[in-house]
Amino acid sequence: MAQIKKAASIGGGVIGGGWIARFILAGIDVNVYDPHPEAKRLVGEVIANAEYAYSLLTNAPLPKRGALIFCASLEEAVKGADWIQESVPERLDLKRSVITQIDLAADPEALIGSSTSGLMATDLQKDMKHPERMFVAHPFNPVYLLPLVELVGGIQTKRAALEDAKARLATIGMTGLLINKEIDAFVADRLMEALWREALWLIKDDICDTETLDNVIRYSFGLRWAQMGLFETYRVAGGEAGMRDYLSKYGPCLEWPWTKLTNVVDLNPELVEKIASQSDAQSGQRGIRDLERIRDQNLVGILQALKVGDEGRGWGAGKLLADFETHLWKIAPKVDNVSRDQALRLLDVKVPAAWIDYNGHMTEYRYTQCFADATDVLLQQCGVDMDYVKGGHSYYTVESHVRLLAEAKLGDALYVKAQLLPSDGKKIHCFMSLHRASDNEVLSTYESVMLHVSLKGKRSVPPQPAIMEKLKPILEAHAALPMPEAVGRSIGEKPARA
Amino acid sequence: MAQIKKAASIGGGVIGGGWIARFILAGIDVNVYDPHPEAKRLVGEVIANAEYAYSLLTNAPLPKRGALIFCASLEEAVKGADWIQESVPERLDLKRSVITQIDLAADPEALIGSSTSGLMATDLQKDMKHPERMFVAHPFNPVYLLPLVELVGGIQTKRAALEDAKARLATIGMTGLLINKEIDAFVADRLMEALWREALWLIKDDICDTETLDNVIRYSFGLRWAQMGLFETYRVAGGEAGMRDYLSKYGPCLEWPWTKLTNVVDLNPELVEKIASQSDAQSGQRGIRDLERIRDQNLVGILQALKVGDEGRGWGAGKLLADFETHLWKIAPKVDNVSRDQALRLLDVKVPAAWIDYNGHMTEYRYTQCFADATDVLLQQCGVDMDYVKGGHSYYTVESHVRLLAEAKLGDALYVKAQLLPSDGKKIHCFMSLHRASDNEVLSTYESVMLHVSLKGKRSVPPQPAIMEKLKPILEAHAALPMPEAVGRSIGEKPARA
Repeated sequence: MAQIKKAASIGGGVIGGGWIARFILAGIDVNVYDPHPEAKRLVGEVIANAEYAYSLLTNAPLPKRGALIFCASLEEAVKGADWIQESVPERLDLKRSVITQIDLAADPEALIGSSTSGLMATDLQKDMKHPERMFVAHPFNPVYLLPLVELVGGIQTKRAALEDAKARLATIGMTGLLINKEIDAFVADRLMEALWREALWLIKDDICDTETLDNVIRYSFGLRWAQMGLFETYRVAGGEAGMRDYLSKYGPCLEWPWTKLTNVVDLNPELVEKIASQSDAQSGQRGIRDLERIRDQNLVGILQALKVGDEGRGWGAGKLLADFETHLWKIAPKVDNVSRDQALRLLDVKVPAAWIDYNGHMTEYRYTQCFADATDVLLQQCGVDMDYVKGGHSYYTVESHVRLLAEAKLGDALYVKAQLLPSDGKKIHCFMSLHRASDNEVLSTYESVMLHVSLKGKRSVPPQPAIMEKLKPILEAHAALPMPEAVGRSIGEKPARA
Repeated sequence: MAQIKKAASIGGGVIGGGWIARFILAGIDVNVYDPHPEAKRLVGEVIANAEYAYSLLTNAPLPKRGALIFCASLEEAVKGADWIQESVPERLDLKRSVITQIDLAADPEALIGSSTSGLMATDLQKDMKHPERMFVAHPFNPVYLLPLVELVGGIQTKRAALEDAKARLATIGMTGLLINKEIDAFVADRLMEALWREALWLIKDDICDTETLDNVIRYSFGLRWAQMGLFETYRVAGGEAGMRDYLSKYGPCLEWPWTKLTNVVDLNPELVEKIASQSDAQSGQRGIRDLERIRDQNLVGILQALKVGDEGRGWGAGKLLADFETHLWKIAPKVDNVSRDQALRLLDVKVPAAWIDYNGHMTEYRYTQCFADATDVLLQQCGVDMDYVKGGHSYYTVESHVRLLAEAKLGDALYVKAQLLPSDGKKIHCFMSLHRASDNEVLSTYESVMLHVSLKGKRSVPPQPAIMEKLKPILEAHAALPMPEAVGRSIGEKPARA
C-alpha cells in the first residue's frame, strides 16, 4: 500500500504546523526546517491543539506518534524524506527558490507538494531538475482536522505522481481531489475569493458589520455547505421539478444586480445541460426524498454538535437551538397541571436512525438514554433546572436496573412513564417504563436511585425547600399507586408471580 | 412576550411549506392559501420531513401542534392572522400584487413578511395602505431547520415592526438579523450569488465537475462556515499577528487573477481598520487560543455528526473520517489480549464533548454506551460479527444493572474490563467495570444478561459451534476468578460485606 514513510516540512507556521501534526499523529516521523526563532513553540502549539482534537475525534487506535525533528538546514530536513511539503510565505520568487533548493537536496523519487493557496505548479517547478514529482497540495486550516487537499499538477508534473500523492494522503486521513485544469487559486480559493470580494463590498458599503455577516453565514448556508456542496444543495431545493428546471429558473438572476461582481457567465441551454448531467452523475442514484432525509439528519447532527460547543454553552446555530429549547421548556405545561394519581408521562420520542444498531433495532444504551432524558424532564419540572445546577446543587443517578423486554424499530413513537417510589427527596427512588405509543406495549423498565448532591462538597445533602414543595405532592400521590412487580429485583431474578 | 398567535402562509411550496412546518410545530395555527392543485400534498410532505427532523433534533417538550387550515381564498387565509408570510414565486409584479391584496384584507396591525430572496421591500410595499408593517423576512431552505431570517425594511417600514418581528421569530426557533441598508439580494444571497457565479465559470471552463466542486466545499471551508463565519475564521487563521496584519497581507490578492469576478474593492488602510475594529468588537473578548479550541471542538462535533450520516454509513467529511478509522484499525498491532486468566480489557475510549451533560461530566447513558460498546467488542472477538448477524443469529442484552460510582470528565481516558460469569452460551452472564486509565479507579460497574437468539424465530437458541469454541475457554478460565461483590445485587442493596 502507498504510504508516507518519512515526511519533511519546510515551514512551521499555521499551515506547516498543521501538516506536521497530521504526519506525527499518523505515526510518521517528520523533519522540520523553519528559521523562525519561535518555530518550535508555534509548531508545539499546533500539535497540542491537534492532539486534543484527536482525543475527542476518534476512538480508533492512533499509532505510536512519529518523531518530530527540527533541522538546522533545509538540506538536512529533506534528507531521507519521501514526502516533502513546502509551506513558506505566499511569494512566487520565495516559493520557487525554496522548491528548487528542495529538489536539489531531496531523493529524486520523493514527492514534493506545495501548500500554496493560489500559485501555479507550472511556475513553481520551472527551475527544478526533477519537476515531474512536484505539484500543488493545497490544504485547509486547521490542517489536522479538515480533510481536503487540492492536488494540481503543473505542465511538467506526471499524472502518476498525483495518483501516488492521493493514495498516500488517504493514510493520514486526508483526501486529495485532483483538479482537471491548472488555474490560479484552483477551486476552493476561487470560490472563497469571490465570496470574500463580495463580503468586502458589503462591509465597505455599510450594509452590515462583520458580526452580522458571519452570523448570516453560520446560521444559513454555512450549515448546508458543511454536508452538501452547492450543486447538490440546489438539486434538493429544486425538488421534484429537477435540476434542469431549477437552473433554467435561476438563470435570469445572473442579469440582476445581485452582486457587485459582474463578469457573468452565460447560463445558456448548453451550460444548463452540462451542469444538470454532471449533477445526475453525482447525485442521480438517490431520489430527492432520500437526499432531503440525509440533508436533514446531517443538519440535525450539526446543530446538536454545535449545541454542546463552547464547553456546553452552545455555539453559533447550536446556541440558537439551545435558546429555543429553553423557550419550549418555559412554555411547557408545568407538572402541577399533570394529574398526580397516575404515573407521569414524561417523554415522547421517535426512534431516529442514529439509535439503530447492527441488529436493526434500537441499541441498548438508547433505552437508558430515554430513561435518562425522562429523568431530566422530571427534574426540570420539579425546579431542578440550569439555574439550580449553577447554584451548586443537582441530582446524580447512582444506580439503575434496566430490563429490555421488546424491540424498538426506526421511527417507532415511544413514551416514558414514571412512578416515584417512597423517597425522602435527598434520595429519589424511581421506577419507569418505556412504551411503544401505537399499542402501549412495555418495551423496557428502569429502576433508579438518585441522590441530591452539593456540587461543591460532592456530598449528598437535602434539596432546597422549593424543590421539595414540588416533589412532595407527587410522592404523596404516587404512594397510593401499586408497587411495580419489577422493583427491587436483582439481575436474572424471576418476577414474584411470573 | 411578543409571540405569533395565528399565522397565515400565502404560498405552500418548499419555502411556504417550511414556514408552515415551523409555525405548527411551535404550536401556532396556520391558514394556508395556495391555488396549486397539489399544494396539500406538497405541504404535507414538508411537514412530514419537519416532524421527523424535530423528533431527532430535540428532547425539549414541543407544544401541541398548531392546526393546519387550507383556505379557499387569500382573504380568508389572512383573516385573524397576526403574522402573514408571503412565499409566492420570485416575480416583482406578482409579489407586489399579492402583498397589496394581503394588505387590504388583513388586520392593519398584522405583520407581513415576504420570503423574497432578493427583491426590495421598498418596491413590494409601494401600493400598500399600511406599508409600515411590511418587510422582507428571508428564510433559508429547509426553513424548519435553518434558523436565519434576514429582516430588511423598505423605505416605509417602521423600525418597531422589524424589532417586533425579531422578537416573535425567536419563539419559533428562528433568529432575525436586521440588515442596515436595503439592497438587492441583501447579505446571504449576495455572498452566495458571488460564489455561484464563480462556480458556474469553473464548470463552464471545465476546471472541475459539479461533484468535485461540491466535495471541495464540504471537505474544507463548508465545515468552517457551519460554525464560524468568514471574518472570525480569518481572525483565527491570522493567529497571534492579529486581524489587521492578516488583512494587510491579503490585500494584494485582490489584484491577482484569482476570480473571474473582477470589480474589486480597494482594501485600503481605512477599510482594513474598519474591518479589524468590527472584528475586535465581534470576537475580541476571546483570545486566539480560545477561539481555536472552540473551532476545533465544533469541527470534531460536525465530523462526528456526519460520520453517522446516511444511516450510519457516513456522509461527506464524516465518511472520510470513517474511512480513516478503518485504516487505523487495519494498521493497528493485533493483540491477542485474551489473556484468559484475568478479566478482559475490551475498550479504550476518551470522553468527548458530546458525552458531557449539564452537570459538567459524562452523562448516565454514556456509561451504558461504554459497556454496550465493550459488549460488542467481546462478541466480535467471539465471532459474532456482521456476517454472523446476517446469517440470522445474534445476542440480545435483556437485562442490566449499572452502578455509577464516580464521575468521568471531558477528555478522560477510560477502559472497560469484563468477566464472564458461569453461563451456558445460550445465555451469557457478564460483569464489567469501567475504569479511569490514569489511576484505574472504578467509575462504574455493569452486570448484564444476554441471550443468543434466532433473528427469524425471535427466540433463544444455542449459538453456532464456532462461537462456543471461542467462548468456552474464556468461560472456563473466568470460572476461576473471584465473583465480583456487586453481582446479583438489586437496586439500593448494600454489598454483602460493606
